[in-house]
Amino acid sequence: MFRGLSAFPPTPTDADGIVQPDALSRLVDRLATAGVDSIGLLGSTGGYAYLSRPERRRAVEIAVKTLAGRTPLIVGVGALRTDEAMALAGDAAKAGANGLLLAPVSYTPLTEDEVFAHFAAVAGATDLPLVIYNNPGTTKFTFSPDLIVRLSAIPQIATVKMPLPVDASFEAEMAALRARLPQGFAIGYSGDWGAAEALLSGADAWYSVVAGLLPAQALALTRAAQAGDAAEAHRLNQAFDPLWTLFKQFGSFRVMYAMAATLDLFHAAPHRPVLPIPDEALPRVAAALEGLQD
Amino acid sequence: MFRGLSAFPPTPTDADGIVQPDALSRLVDRLATAGVDSIGLLGSTGGYAYLSRPERRRAVEIAVKTLAGRTPLIVGVGALRTDEAMALAGDAAKAGANGLLLAPVSYTPLTEDEVFAHFAAVAGATDLPLVIYNNPGTTKFTFSPDLIVRLSAIPQIATVKMPLPVDASFEAEMAALRARLPQGFAIGYSGDWGAAEALLSGADAWYSVVAGLLPAQALALTRAAQAGDAAEAHRLNQAFDPLWTLFKQFGSFRVMYAMAATLDLFHAAPHRPVLPIPDEALPRVAAALEGLQD
Repeated sequence: MFRGLSAFPPTPTDADGIVQPDALSRLVDRLATAGVDSIGLLGSTGGYAYLSRPERRRAVEIAVKTLAGRTPLIVGVGALRTDEAMALAGDAAKAGANGLLLAPVSYTPLTEDEVFAHFAAVAGATDLPLVIYNNPGTTKFTFSPDLIVRLSAIPQIATVKMPLPVDASFEAEMAALRARLPQGFAIGYSGDWGAAEALLSGADAWYSVVAGLLPAQALALTRAAQAGDAAEAHRLNQAFDPLWTLFKQFGSFRVMYAMAATLDLFHAAPHRPVLPIPDEALPRVAAALEGLQD
Repeated sequence: MFRGLSAFPPTPTDADGIVQPDALSRLVDRLATAGVDSIGLLGSTGGYAYLSRPERRRAVEIAVKTLAGRTPLIVGVGALRTDEAMALAGDAAKAGANGLLLAPVSYTPLTEDEVFAHFAAVAGATDLPLVIYNNPGTTKFTFSPDLIVRLSAIPQIATVKMPLPVDASFEAEMAALRARLPQGFAIGYSGDWGAAEALLSGADAWYSVVAGLLPAQALALTRAAQAGDAAEAHRLNQAFDPLWTLFKQFGSFRVMYAMAATLDLFHAAPHRPVLPIPDEALPRVAAALEGLQD
């Protein structure tokens, strides 16, 4: 479940944060049909942080029903409070999720011991395998290699979703981690514009924003890179370049809403205070998508 | 209301995040009796980010009833979603708050336009004056001078609570801001260990963590600095030094829980994932408090 392409769909909601069941079901079905290796529901792209507990439970129920076991479903259960994250993990498990994704959401900046205790509590709340969600851009918490190694000793903790490395190569970062992690502990990466390089360097998984809406194109890139075909992976990655530029400029969370509307997959706004990208940028979104049609 | 010493009490709760009414009432009464210039309920020190909307409303009701108009009450209404922050502002106004404090809580990092629209929406939700809560340490958002100036044009936005300056002196930072802000727009500072210097440099207010539990000592420092008595302000500040060291090492939010227990004001733990400070550090808390008894 924690290898290959994991696609993170947005969660279409109305202005009050109520999930649109038909739109979500369509998105999830599209991912399963395309053949992605797993679906990451209620990740950062899925806006989990902005949704209430009942809506998060509903989203999982809709996805489970739509998938009917076709594709493994990983569900984000991050919350500011440990008891809330544990409750969300219980909800997801009961609704039929196959795995959990946990980010150390913070207000008071957290210590490593606090994050360890938080993860141990949530991992202990169900039998499901859990992904460490290392996403400093949103949580402002960076996992040290020591903490990842410490967490990897907890049986339910199965893998880590890493941000793009800042100071090291993928190879160096993964080699250093793998030397200390249990056999079979998968290392995946998020940060779409680095995914081709991550996979070519031996990463186990690409946790992909763009695959949430463009699963076929992201899969083609993934399969080329997994096969070690660097030329083809780079060629496919290049077609994404205008989109990566938009992701970096406006944040992928905002751009995905514009992509969904352009593709007529769903029409919704991000959760305020987050605003849609400016109208002037919409032609660039259309052009970027145009360049990705087969 | 936005001048002098604003004291930020912790919010005593049980492990489920339910406010302890007697303990909170005792704390608030103690602050009013000591004569602080305002009370900052449900600030970062008050753990607002970890409390449910009903508990936040209850906390305001308890404080309003206890104060019976003796001391202006400023209430933190920060929330991840704009509609939630607006609802919290309405709750606080209805319960009898005198002012609001708003931090740009974020998950997806916010743009300046998003924060502006968020503040405009919340400021428009009530008639109460509002404090811009510039607290990059918890929100990860830093207000530019341009944005503060832009926000100061909104009638309800009355003042800004600044973090300690990183690259500038207090004088230089305040002079640059005051040259662009409306007449009478107050500038206050948080960051307890810099408060003596901030006030001596002409800051309008000290938004104080420590005053939430040690109001008399914080008031003495405030009054000395307001009177321009640098020698006395520095002498009083020096007595706080062991506490500032603990604040910097463990975070003031955590240390305040240990202080409250040591002073027998209330006995509660911070909200998990935040953990109490280690037992080994408790003698240092006791010693720091000992040095502050008159």
